[in-house]
Amino acid sequence: MTEHFLDRSVTQPFWDNSVEPRLVIDPGDVVVFDCPECGDQFTPDWTTEDMLNADGSKFHALIGSVYINSARPGDVLEVEVLRLEHHNWGWTAFSPGFGLLDDDFRAEPYIHHWRIEGDDCHFGVNGIVVPYEPFCGVMGVAPAETGRFRTIPPHFGGGNMDTRDMGVGSTVWFPVFADGALFSCGDCHAAQGHGEVCGTGIEAPITVTLRFNVRKDMSIREVQFRAPSPLTRTDNRGYHVTTAHGPDLWQNSQNALRYTLDWMVQEHGITRGQAYALASCASDLKITEIVDAPNWIVGCYTPLSIFR
Amino acid sequence: MTEHFLDRSVTQPFWDNSVEPRLVIDPGDVVVFDCPECGDQFTPDWTTEDMLNADGSKFHALIGSVYINSARPGDVLEVEVLRLEHHNWGWTAFSPGFGLLDDDFRAEPYIHHWRIEGDDCHFGVNGIVVPYEPFCGVMGVAPAETGRFRTIPPHFGGGNMDTRDMGVGSTVWFPVFADGALFSCGDCHAAQGHGEVCGTGIEAPITVTLRFNVRKDMSIREVQFRAPSPLTRTDNRGYHVTTAHGPDLWQNSQNALRYTLDWMVQEHGITRGQAYALASCASDLKITEIVDAPNWIVGCYTPLSIFR
Repeated sequence: MTEHFLDRSVTQPFWDNSVEPRLVIDPGDVVVFDCPECGDQFTPDWTTEDMLNADGSKFHALIGSVYINSARPGDVLEVEVLRLEHHNWGWTAFSPGFGLLDDDFRAEPYIHHWRIEGDDCHFGVNGIVVPYEPFCGVMGVAPAETGRFRTIPPHFGGGNMDTRDMGVGSTVWFPVFADGALFSCGDCHAAQGHGEVCGTGIEAPITVTLRFNVRKDMSIREVQFRAPSPLTRTDNRGYHVTTAHGPDLWQNSQNALRYTLDWMVQEHGITRGQAYALASCASDLKITEIVDAPNWIVGCYTPLSIFR
Repeated sequence: MTEHFLDRSVTQPFWDNSVEPRLVIDPGDVVVFDCPECGDQFTPDWTTEDMLNADGSKFHALIGSVYINSARPGDVLEVEVLRLEHHNWGWTAFSPGFGLLDDDFRAEPYIHHWRIEGDDCHFGVNGIVVPYEPFCGVMGVAPAETGRFRTIPPHFGGGNMDTRDMGVGSTVWFPVFADGALFSCGDCHAAQGHGEVCGTGIEAPITVTLRFNVRKDMSIREVQFRAPSPLTRTDNRGYHVTTAHGPDLWQNSQNALRYTLDWMVQEHGITRGQAYALASCASDLKITEIVDAPNWIVGCYTPLSIFR
């Protein structure tokens, strides 16, 4: 086994199966990725104004690609998440055109900075602390299609999955579409709720250590993974849950989130914008019922342990 | 505080705000509901044929209604879930016209019986055990609208929410639309995954004990609740998670579930029909990402602790 290191001197803000890999490794090797925050430009003193003027061409500043020897289309790339080390700071923001409640917040863009110490992410308001439960918002392999693709939408090879339970100790399986798989990662989050409702988690520079293997004995159509227990350290003081019913899961998600923001503002004395950012980092959207036609239910779960 | 008892001699398979209540209580009172399984007719020896010939007019066999003194439209009815006692048996089934994968399983209706002992629900195949984590599939208050309504779709007053975390120790809040609230419950499940994907959980006769209060200091538009930690006893050996991406959360849910059934069949040696029933009782649908347009992601989480 060899351990490799990829610095942040080159970033890849696209998917493209024709791009030359930065690194060629053998199955069983480990790679350390020095991932910047997703935009590769934010700093702890950035204001909302700075964010609105950010250079969009740099998103997502992925690190890669890695060519894994012996990986061929039809195989499965197995990625073990070994370590995720923060650098004491992260940001959460929303801006026009992005987020589940874009219509509600379009006129009020906002950036929020978090101080991360040890295993705690400090919101900086009313003693609110979200546990450090990090993962890569983006992990993926090059798509089957030729051409250069944006990184925002997830695809069959993974990509911008923003799926919080792919943390340390998890194993993630990707279908391979190109020789060598051509893996890249980045867009790390120090924490995020299921849904990433405002469009960002706790966006943070994180040093990512992954081990790679090639599975010839598996076949999958989309990404699968195994997550260790417990799924979260927040499940110790109960949850406040809002529900919304109706025939459209997306609108139900919007309504359940709106009720959660109402509750946070009333019960925990934060602004509605702060609540939107906080819910994006700590509240989980679950489909609690999807069979009682015509009305499905989405629940928005907020762990009470984040409040002091 | 007075404790009341409602037997199963009268059931209410509808919502109707003009119906005469069976019981009038004061805030603070406790009511024990002797709930049959949702159909009020199934027995442990029923076959798939029996199920297909069931008397549909009896579903859901709710127990109620209860008139809570002082509850007025605009108030909130607070319900504390105190006890949920099983009677050693439950069933799970799917039949044409119902369930997230109705198109896949339309030709193969199926009923599965569970033996419930203490805190364990025994699947009866390959040692699979799902923990007894019961709740009322239906809890609700009479709707604002006059008339008689089916119980299948949930409504603003709750009803057939099939939301698994409303278990013992939880507190559920319902908006009140009629004088006295007119609360009913039933359709109890010994366990269920988020989604209730095949259309049924572990349908079981359960003796339900609830305490009622009226909150004049709250205002909600749809049901909210507080659930105790941990949300489930299954979160101790990790999860296998399948993901599906795309612009439609409902179709993503179907695909993630299909991948989970593939995995159960391959890894755990059960039939696809058994897997569909098992997933409905143990696997959770979560919206892991809802902002990376145009592709949202649904994850289907299966706890590994249910397999021996």
